[in-house]
Amino acid sequence: MDTHLIIHLEKTLGKANVLHTPEDLAVYSYDGTFAEGSPDLVCLPETTEQVSQIVRLAAEAHVPIVPRGMGSGLAAGSIPMPTGGIVLCLTRMNHILEIDTENATVRAEAGVVTADLQTAVEKMGLFYPPDPSSIRHSTIGGNVACNAGGPRCLKYGVTGDYVLGLTVVLADGQILKTGQKTIKDVTGYDLNGLFTGSEGTLGLVTEVLLRLIAKPRYARTALAEFASLDDACRTVNAILQAGIVPASLELMDQTAILCIEDALHLGLNTDVEASLIIETDGTDEQSVLSEIEASSRICQESGARLVKMAQNEAERNNLWKARRSMAPALARLAPNKLGEDITVPRSAIPEVVHRLRAISAKYGLPIAIFGHAGDGNLHPNILFDKRQPEQWAKAEQMVAEIFDASLAVGGTLSGEHGVGVLKRPYLERALGPLSIEVQRHIKQALDPLNILNPGKIFPV
Amino acid sequence: MDTHLIIHLEKTLGKANVLHTPEDLAVYSYDGTFAEGSPDLVCLPETTEQVSQIVRLAAEAHVPIVPRGMGSGLAAGSIPMPTGGIVLCLTRMNHILEIDTENATVRAEAGVVTADLQTAVEKMGLFYPPDPSSIRHSTIGGNVACNAGGPRCLKYGVTGDYVLGLTVVLADGQILKTGQKTIKDVTGYDLNGLFTGSEGTLGLVTEVLLRLIAKPRYARTALAEFASLDDACRTVNAILQAGIVPASLELMDQTAILCIEDALHLGLNTDVEASLIIETDGTDEQSVLSEIEASSRICQESGARLVKMAQNEAERNNLWKARRSMAPALARLAPNKLGEDITVPRSAIPEVVHRLRAISAKYGLPIAIFGHAGDGNLHPNILFDKRQPEQWAKAEQMVAEIFDASLAVGGTLSGEHGVGVLKRPYLERALGPLSIEVQRHIKQALDPLNILNPGKIFPV
Repeated sequence: MDTHLIIHLEKTLGKANVLHTPEDLAVYSYDGTFAEGSPDLVCLPETTEQVSQIVRLAAEAHVPIVPRGMGSGLAAGSIPMPTGGIVLCLTRMNHILEIDTENATVRAEAGVVTADLQTAVEKMGLFYPPDPSSIRHSTIGGNVACNAGGPRCLKYGVTGDYVLGLTVVLADGQILKTGQKTIKDVTGYDLNGLFTGSEGTLGLVTEVLLRLIAKPRYARTALAEFASLDDACRTVNAILQAGIVPASLELMDQTAILCIEDALHLGLNTDVEASLIIETDGTDEQSVLSEIEASSRICQESGARLVKMAQNEAERNNLWKARRSMAPALARLAPNKLGEDITVPRSAIPEVVHRLRAISAKYGLPIAIFGHAGDGNLHPNILFDKRQPEQWAKAEQMVAEIFDASLAVGGTLSGEHGVGVLKRPYLERALGPLSIEVQRHIKQALDPLNILNPGKIFPV
Repeated sequence: MDTHLIIHLEKTLGKANVLHTPEDLAVYSYDGTFAEGSPDLVCLPETTEQVSQIVRLAAEAHVPIVPRGMGSGLAAGSIPMPTGGIVLCLTRMNHILEIDTENATVRAEAGVVTADLQTAVEKMGLFYPPDPSSIRHSTIGGNVACNAGGPRCLKYGVTGDYVLGLTVVLADGQILKTGQKTIKDVTGYDLNGLFTGSEGTLGLVTEVLLRLIAKPRYARTALAEFASLDDACRTVNAILQAGIVPASLELMDQTAILCIEDALHLGLNTDVEASLIIETDGTDEQSVLSEIEASSRICQESGARLVKMAQNEAERNNLWKARRSMAPALARLAPNKLGEDITVPRSAIPEVVHRLRAISAKYGLPIAIFGHAGDGNLHPNILFDKRQPEQWAKAEQMVAEIFDASLAVGGTLSGEHGVGVLKRPYLERALGPLSIEVQRHIKQALDPLNILNPGKIFPV
């Protein structure tokens, strides 16, 4: 990399905030996937103004900028591949700037860890609902970049549903502020919506203004075990059609349950094809209770073998323990896992699960299936051993077939992880060439030099 | 207009679907505002393919296309001004194509009247919540173009929150399909969000795929009268801070109440500064009741002089009658009204209402204030007589000051009507030059010839 540029950047940020030793660069070469790509330089800005200056310098030198937070992404969207360039790491911009209790909003820098933001607003009696499973180590900026979801998004909506305003550094270094503390706004195009989920390819989000809600006071949780996977899937729709909107409606298939029981010995019945975890919440204790009771009744009427309703907070935590321990539990069964996040129309859940099982049988590698069934958002995780090249090759073929299965039933590639590098080869199959052409025009309009996270989203 | 183009269009659509007599053109020169502008030609397509052909022909001839539905817009967004051109009226594309009860979705052509769509889905036990007051004569395509709202949007969100997919004819005539029947999707940029609210300037929406919810089974309504407007405004926040999310939380100020009582003799107490109409709804009768009771208690604790809770459906309709009769009631007090739809942070409602009253006093023309207080979305309506030129001049100055008042307290120009022609002069004040520059780049990228609804949204 041009030494003039390095010297300029060191002047702008201070030497300590510009990293270029091989050891330092290695740290910023990974995310939550198997992908890897080394940056030429890492910048650790502390202000939006500094981000703007970095972008101006990079634009002059035509050097790509790859924004990242904690690097927990699951699509290689924050890895500087294939282009190298500057990794712009926003983790030092980790201040909560304002909690407005009257308007129920929070303003925070992009590098704030989402769990920290949640804790801070909950202390004020407010609530930020989106809860990606990476919540303790992913940043709110990364959540916005991928429009992150989570179990609670069935009732409460995803990250984008809470974005009221953004501070965005554009590709030429100009600083754009969108939105304000208003719930509704149709003054011009929806720029909040455009930047959310754009994975750092249209602008660099350095600050967010989020809508909050009052903290739900009560929650009730039930676990329902089904001998038949189809019955479990049909139950999801039956609950929603009854007009109940649980906070969460999570599915785990037998492979997932076996993994968890093997790891944690929670006393789960492993002789079932699927379980549902259902949680209702709200401000009125009686209605939260009557919703979980009605949900449990529907489970029983739909063929559940057993429905356990948590009677206290300890029992509730215990029911959630299974779902929350999924990642470490899978790690015990196989050295590696490859997790996707296909989303299908709810009615297609049984069909797609059967297709996933057929893929697993065809290749002889287990697929654990779990996820946010109420949203139709499933996480099929292929379990394998990457050290065995034929397993790795199989896993890669299986991913392609998993996407085909989703698209065949009217689904999509990703519900909450984004496209990044890894899903690019499948994008045209999912969206068709015209949608990609339109999106390329937008990218070209906002980043004519293609320096903001190049090589992401769009097919090569 | 070029006769070749007319002949081509008549061949494509049939002569009966291409209008050009002065009488016919006059019908398509208006919307719900005072603005007026005659098209050169009106096309009444019946299919997306025909819309595509019209756009191709218009693009070749560089003739502007102004899309419209029933012309109920409140910002002159569907009037062919200042450019003339082809008005593309979508009212013959009024078919509901599919109601999917299992996935809770509806697919409909853009020209379906929103109330018809609601009635159709409610027959299947489903529910489409957005309820703009124009619902009986506005089309779903127009609602998408302006991201329409309504009283029920406090709890349920606006039109855009229900858009899963769109069929859009692009500026070169290509037909783009976005989205599918999935609740979550982060596969590329959020094109649904970009086209929604773009007022026909980026593409012509010919078909919509909407998410539905289960129909709420119960609703309870209360009217609270406040001697003090400030108390009424503070009550709005107190209810929301208690964690209650009413379906609607509507405010009417004294001027609005006086108008209604004068017109309808409902027995409203006119000796109050403001009233709130609060409605709770849901699937659990008990919780709907306890929420309206809790809301009523909060009203009383916050200084309400009187709280009436409807005891049956007739009483409920009676309480809503006041709010629903606003437009005709205002028409009795003055020959003309000019209604805006500013949206402010909820905490700023008292401040902005005081500023609106000061504007009214300064110019000596009444402003009736009502609207969706829970969203901070207010409709100040200036009452005047357009035949008196000095009143018309005053009204126009007052509009500018109303926008300034909203912006001064951190608000925005429009919550649900859009920018159209009428709010263009204020856009830069609201968004700043950089946001407009970004939006112009997007417009230029998707409509390089500027033939889709030119002269709208962007300042001259």
